[in-house]
Amino acid sequence: MSLPISGDVGAQEIDITNETSSQHHSEAPYIHKVGIPPKQNLLQEITATVKETLFADDLFRQFKDQPRSRKFIIGIQSVFPILEWGRHYNLTKFRGDLIAGLTVASLCIPQGIAYAKVANLDPQYGLYSSSVPPLIYAFMGSSRDMAIGPVAVVSLLLGALLGEEIDPDIHPLDYRRLAFTATFFAGITEVVLGFFRLGFLIDFLSHAAVVGFMAGAAITISLQQFKGLLGITKFTKKTDIVSVMRSVWSTVNHGWNWQTIVIAVTFLAFLLLAKYIGKKNRKLFWVPAIAPLISIILSTFLVYITRADKHDVAIVGKVKKGVNPSSVNEIFFTGTYLAKGFEIGVVAGLVALAEAIAIGRTFATKNNYQLDGNKEMIAQGTMNVVGSMTSCFITTGSFSRSAVNCMTGCQTTVSNMVMSCVVLLTLELITPLFKYTPNAILASIVISATVGLIDIEAILLFWKIDKFDFATCTGACLGVVFVSVEIGLLIAVSISFAKILLQVTRPRTSILGKLPRTTNYGDILQYPEAKKVPGVLIVRVDSAIYFSNSNYIRERIWRWLGDEEEYLKENHQPRIQYLILEMSPVTNIDTSGIQALEELHKSLQKGNIQLVLANPGPVVIHKLHASKFTDLIGEDKIFVTVSDAIVTYKIGEA
Amino acid sequence: MSLPISGDVGAQEIDITNETSSQHHSEAPYIHKVGIPPKQNLLQEITATVKETLFADDLFRQFKDQPRSRKFIIGIQSVFPILEWGRHYNLTKFRGDLIAGLTVASLCIPQGIAYAKVANLDPQYGLYSSSVPPLIYAFMGSSRDMAIGPVAVVSLLLGALLGEEIDPDIHPLDYRRLAFTATFFAGITEVVLGFFRLGFLIDFLSHAAVVGFMAGAAITISLQQFKGLLGITKFTKKTDIVSVMRSVWSTVNHGWNWQTIVIAVTFLAFLLLAKYIGKKNRKLFWVPAIAPLISIILSTFLVYITRADKHDVAIVGKVKKGVNPSSVNEIFFTGTYLAKGFEIGVVAGLVALAEAIAIGRTFATKNNYQLDGNKEMIAQGTMNVVGSMTSCFITTGSFSRSAVNCMTGCQTTVSNMVMSCVVLLTLELITPLFKYTPNAILASIVISATVGLIDIEAILLFWKIDKFDFATCTGACLGVVFVSVEIGLLIAVSISFAKILLQVTRPRTSILGKLPRTTNYGDILQYPEAKKVPGVLIVRVDSAIYFSNSNYIRERIWRWLGDEEEYLKENHQPRIQYLILEMSPVTNIDTSGIQALEELHKSLQKGNIQLVLANPGPVVIHKLHASKFTDLIGEDKIFVTVSDAIVTYKIGEA
Repeated sequence: MSLPISGDVGAQEIDITNETSSQHHSEAPYIHKVGIPPKQNLLQEITATVKETLFADDLFRQFKDQPRSRKFIIGIQSVFPILEWGRHYNLTKFRGDLIAGLTVASLCIPQGIAYAKVANLDPQYGLYSSSVPPLIYAFMGSSRDMAIGPVAVVSLLLGALLGEEIDPDIHPLDYRRLAFTATFFAGITEVVLGFFRLGFLIDFLSHAAVVGFMAGAAITISLQQFKGLLGITKFTKKTDIVSVMRSVWSTVNHGWNWQTIVIAVTFLAFLLLAKYIGKKNRKLFWVPAIAPLISIILSTFLVYITRADKHDVAIVGKVKKGVNPSSVNEIFFTGTYLAKGFEIGVVAGLVALAEAIAIGRTFATKNNYQLDGNKEMIAQGTMNVVGSMTSCFITTGSFSRSAVNCMTGCQTTVSNMVMSCVVLLTLELITPLFKYTPNAILASIVISATVGLIDIEAILLFWKIDKFDFATCTGACLGVVFVSVEIGLLIAVSISFAKILLQVTRPRTSILGKLPRTTNYGDILQYPEAKKVPGVLIVRVDSAIYFSNSNYIRERIWRWLGDEEEYLKENHQPRIQYLILEMSPVTNIDTSGIQALEELHKSLQKGNIQLVLANPGPVVIHKLHASKFTDLIGEDKIFVTVSDAIVTYKIGEA
Repeated sequence: MSLPISGDVGAQEIDITNETSSQHHSEAPYIHKVGIPPKQNLLQEITATVKETLFADDLFRQFKDQPRSRKFIIGIQSVFPILEWGRHYNLTKFRGDLIAGLTVASLCIPQGIAYAKVANLDPQYGLYSSSVPPLIYAFMGSSRDMAIGPVAVVSLLLGALLGEEIDPDIHPLDYRRLAFTATFFAGITEVVLGFFRLGFLIDFLSHAAVVGFMAGAAITISLQQFKGLLGITKFTKKTDIVSVMRSVWSTVNHGWNWQTIVIAVTFLAFLLLAKYIGKKNRKLFWVPAIAPLISIILSTFLVYITRADKHDVAIVGKVKKGVNPSSVNEIFFTGTYLAKGFEIGVVAGLVALAEAIAIGRTFATKNNYQLDGNKEMIAQGTMNVVGSMTSCFITTGSFSRSAVNCMTGCQTTVSNMVMSCVVLLTLELITPLFKYTPNAILASIVISATVGLIDIEAILLFWKIDKFDFATCTGACLGVVFVSVEIGLLIAVSISFAKILLQVTRPRTSILGKLPRTTNYGDILQYPEAKKVPGVLIVRVDSAIYFSNSNYIRERIWRWLGDEEEYLKENHQPRIQYLILEMSPVTNIDTSGIQALEELHKSLQKGNIQLVLANPGPVVIHKLHASKFTDLIGEDKIFVTVSDAIVTYKIGEA
């Protein structure tokens, strides 16, 4: 708080001149009137609200004043961004995309097989899902860094939701069909959200909720890998930690397979080491990127030559050869599973979308380009709809693979095309070689991939900055770990909403005082040096005044007044004559709020205290006028600033 | 906008001196530093939040520094306010209460019988409900004006909800037992809300929702009275307008009873005339108050001497004589109806409570006393719990009867006692006389009472002031009229929540300009005379920055900047160097919000624009510090006012 002397003096002078001019020199200091914005009619009001809600990105601006043919081209380009950036595509860019695509493919193939297992599907479906959707995305996607394919969290969610309806071991065909149905509706959900520009709904899945949900899912998925790691044959279908640990312990004496454990632990150590190396030395980022593929090749070779599968080491078994078969006929378009598929699809689609948008935004900010949320949703949705018809389950952007994509120097979505081609070639040529791949290696790959989903730093930051975010995050995480993925999601969304509602139910109110040597008034808790003005109580309400808080605010102001008057009485000081309500943070008011102000005004009148308003915003002043509240208290009781009110009433400045 | 010349001149002078001192005279103008409130630890933070959320009324203040015996007495007095005001009770007050009590009783007896019919219960239950609950309330209630008893809206809601479970014509006993069970749980709900100080939950049932719901209920109830008015014997159980009108038309040729219609129309005209007289001449308010009783007496006498019941005029029939029998054994404490009763009780209890609190608050403001919401809830709950054990159905405060109570000069809740005694005497002595009361007269009484529930003025006010309130209100009303009471309630609550959420999803942002001849900056839409400062874009965000709006706000600011830069380019004006974010209305920020600011800062840096913050509040500055955002942009970029920032950077003031 120490200031240079010269500054001090200068400021003192301002203060003096100010005081002089407003107090003694001129009788009527200049007081600016509170402005009332021009009245909008209902249609304008609705149009403006709809525009800001649904078209916040000003979608139609680029179409304005263009000939019809140009409009058509812009329209097509906005759906297929490749038509725009494709014109400037060149060999240099392709080199970047090629290297990135090959690297991501090496990561994507083992992860795809592993995540298919997480979703309780056969390994080839993981590869199918890594081929068609990325190809579609390459034409429609607006994020150049995003690597598309199956991801851990969505696979877990899908598996858990599907498993509640159909047991994959007993009815594998129905299970798979329901998976495609859910994928279809997930895609439809995403397209609809994008097309009707309802992308903002995704924002309600807050960052804290997503972090918590991902951490919980990572723990749950890792726990489930005990099955593969320990070579347990009979394992629970439930995902909660209690069931899983009970399953693990109950098989401790019989059912653990030491050969499996040796393979799993060795390669897990290798993968984690590779991860560590990649983290320590940014230049070696390709080490963790190719480690999974190396693990798969090595372990498969090892099992093949030692015939470890004869010693009860579980292996992947026959993987179907050939590119994606059609699955249009497998989608349930009728019957009882239609509704179930729809439900699962909506939930899983929203989560997949939230992940995609989060990833898209992160990389867009990093590489300084804009991500069009709604366009992105249409791309994600289309790729899932097409995917559901070509034997794919729900896909989205993968954070870890997108990071590799970005670091290996991808330039456009062509890297997704490259990856897709590699996966298609794999499907056509070398899938039979995966027969001897041990399940344990897939478990190791999943664990080493999912531990990265637990974002400890973010969780610590939530704790430090916003306890509500921390609660959302831990609630989601514990819900997933201890109960189920749906409960985890529900907890996260509920706490997020409660946070918003609590703030408009019990907003802060504060007492303001004059900041020394300025004409500003600040919260006396924030500015302990601020001085209360004798005879005046200045209260600031930190929220819109709505039905949910109008009574509280009225009663709280009344309590501030009671406390202050008691204090003044005890100290034999002059009583309160003016209650100034600083309304800068009051962004809106509704009829209940106006009623509360009217009641406050009436009560104050009975105590011979004047109600004065400072700085009502455009919306508020409009409504105060419409309701004639301004007439009730008098237009002259409404000022632009607290200072104007104080100066006008010539109080407390002696 | 015209000002007196002298004021003008004075103001000019201030401006000049200001400019002089800050621009030329002194090199370093005085800039107040943004305060950072002392850090609270977690426990303090939680305590403060819990206190403001649950103990906003500072419940324990009166207990502070009191000896233990005194504390006990205060505690007892706070549950039974009669012990406090009873000590000052005197004959003068009693005279007021006696007259009020007698008048209200004359209104309460016919309405009680009529509302029992609305809830599909026998008439005596309406009288029972007008005896015990008001007596309990007299000891515990904190509103001296509230007249307790059965009311139209809650009776309708109860009847509709019960009717979905049990048909009252087929299983009258089970129906009644479920009614008592629901009443019991309604009471428990109210007590629990009051005891755990969760009264604020009631605030979420906004005034607009209640007005709309009441209007819808009034229309629905009136429509149902066609049964009694027209003497229809077979009538639908549904409450929606389509079913009811179909029922009415289908009986138009056979089933309407002309004698009934004559009685009904005559007395309805009489009652409405009485209402009109009371409204025109405030002194004759007792005319509508006693008109229902007179109607009952006259019509009963008329039916008795003409034996109109032989001509198919439906009559009330035998009304059981004697005061309330116990109904403890009739409450379902086990079995399938327990859960149903609980559900119905919670919903009906909340609506009853909302009505009671609204009435209590209205009269408290009118007569200048404070209503303790949580205490009131405990009183309401207790009277319903006791009521459920003494053959009463759900009761609450009646708006029309409370108004009569107030106008006839009630002084304390003793008027409820007087009313209760009159009803008990009626039950003991004259109930058999109600045998020949025609049902038509009850229908007339219900209609004349419920039309008053349609608050046209309030609805027009909603339209004028807040379109969302209007939508809530009409949504609730149409939902009740066209679908069902529950749907109406659901619509109302949904729209209310949507209103809150929309505001934190798509908050207003505005561009500020300097108000001429002041150092204040105002919204250029609200103050068209405000001048933008060259080289600076000042944006105000009108909401807390949360996960639900952080992306929108970031993108919106970016769009403001883009628009402005385009405009400047076209007009060959200097480009933007500073983006000042006026944060007065930003009452809170969460991790997503801070992340959005960080991203904004990064993007701005790339465009060589400085991000400057003005007036962050105590909560916000705290979090900005905790997240090191202040270090990121630099402490020197944060100012108390926009004006300070402008002066510091010596821009645009030439």
